[in-house]
Amino acid sequence: MTNRIAVPLPKAYLLLNHGPTVLVSSAHGGQCNVMAAAWNMALDFNPPKVAVVIDKSTLTRELVAASGEFVLNVPAREQAALTLAAGSESGRGIDKMAKVGAHATAASRVGAPLIDGCLAWLECRVIPEPHIEQTYDLFLAEVLAAWADPRAFSENRWHFPNDGRRSIHYLAGGSFFATGEEFKA
Amino acid sequence: MTNRIAVPLPKAYLLLNHGPTVLVSSAHGGQCNVMAAAWNMALDFNPPKVAVVIDKSTLTRELVAASGEFVLNVPAREQAALTLAAGSESGRGIDKMAKVGAHATAASRVGAPLIDGCLAWLECRVIPEPHIEQTYDLFLAEVLAAWADPRAFSENRWHFPNDGRRSIHYLAGGSFFATGEEFKA
Repeated sequence: MTNRIAVPLPKAYLLLNHGPTVLVSSAHGGQCNVMAAAWNMALDFNPPKVAVVIDKSTLTRELVAASGEFVLNVPAREQAALTLAAGSESGRGIDKMAKVGAHATAASRVGAPLIDGCLAWLECRVIPEPHIEQTYDLFLAEVLAAWADPRAFSENRWHFPNDGRRSIHYLAGGSFFATGEEFKA
Repeated sequence: MTNRIAVPLPKAYLLLNHGPTVLVSSAHGGQCNVMAAAWNMALDFNPPKVAVVIDKSTLTRELVAASGEFVLNVPAREQAALTLAAGSESGRGIDKMAKVGAHATAASRVGAPLIDGCLAWLECRVIPEPHIEQTYDLFLAEVLAAWADPRAFSENRWHFPNDGRRSIHYLAGGSFFATGEEFKA
């Protein structure tokens, strides 16, 4: 497991504020899965909430619907191949975690696991909104616990230690942007 | 007005897929306003939809509620000070567009204006979902038209011409990340 520190809940939004692509991990009834999601955002500060799109066709959708829980994992550039694989194939009928090379550690508040090697993790419980889940594949959730790799995020700010440990932003066709230079307006 | 090309609607999601901070422009009854929103995401491919958080306290909220329309403008790094100002003060009782130095051009399908100098623009019509608007300040919308500065986006891909014309990702406290290097997984 990656070393991690607790992020104060009112600061959890900072983990998503810059728009990174995330891995959504989920578990139910002995099954466990991971998918990629560029379509995610913070929704509130305190208690922290998030929004994420989870397509009806995915195994993740089944596991999230059944468990009411998921984890948003913020992957590092060195996990881009894993992230692309997690976004490209279904977990149905295979052990996708093994196939994409994702190792996992138990979370503290939800059954979904934390993906090892990520930069940050948000343990989430779904806020049931059946109409928008059905109509838009849109899930809202409260963040129950948040963690970060202290080499990349501490004292409420990101400070990526090297290019391999920067967050990433998915484009299309296997291409990403790395999170770039920090600057003051 | 910045030179611009139409982006095919099924490709409009690419303008937001990497999680840039946007400017939300709005207009109603002779009033016009602009605010910044890090909490935005694509919601669907075709017809393209978006989601954005618009706080109840804002003038933008009033104008969007009254008009049912807004534009998501993707600002460039050289507009970071404008973006920070647009996110820091209210448009109530002042001409905020003038105060933050935003010039605007008429949009094609909505009354809200396009902010000059941005990298891309998504003209949006609200999909009324009163419960989530009231409960979470969350607005869903269909993208009716999309545009990009061809120096930064053409043939369905981003290709920022220089550091001043890269997109930006808001952190906190006046700090942003620039969109970084593109790479293949």
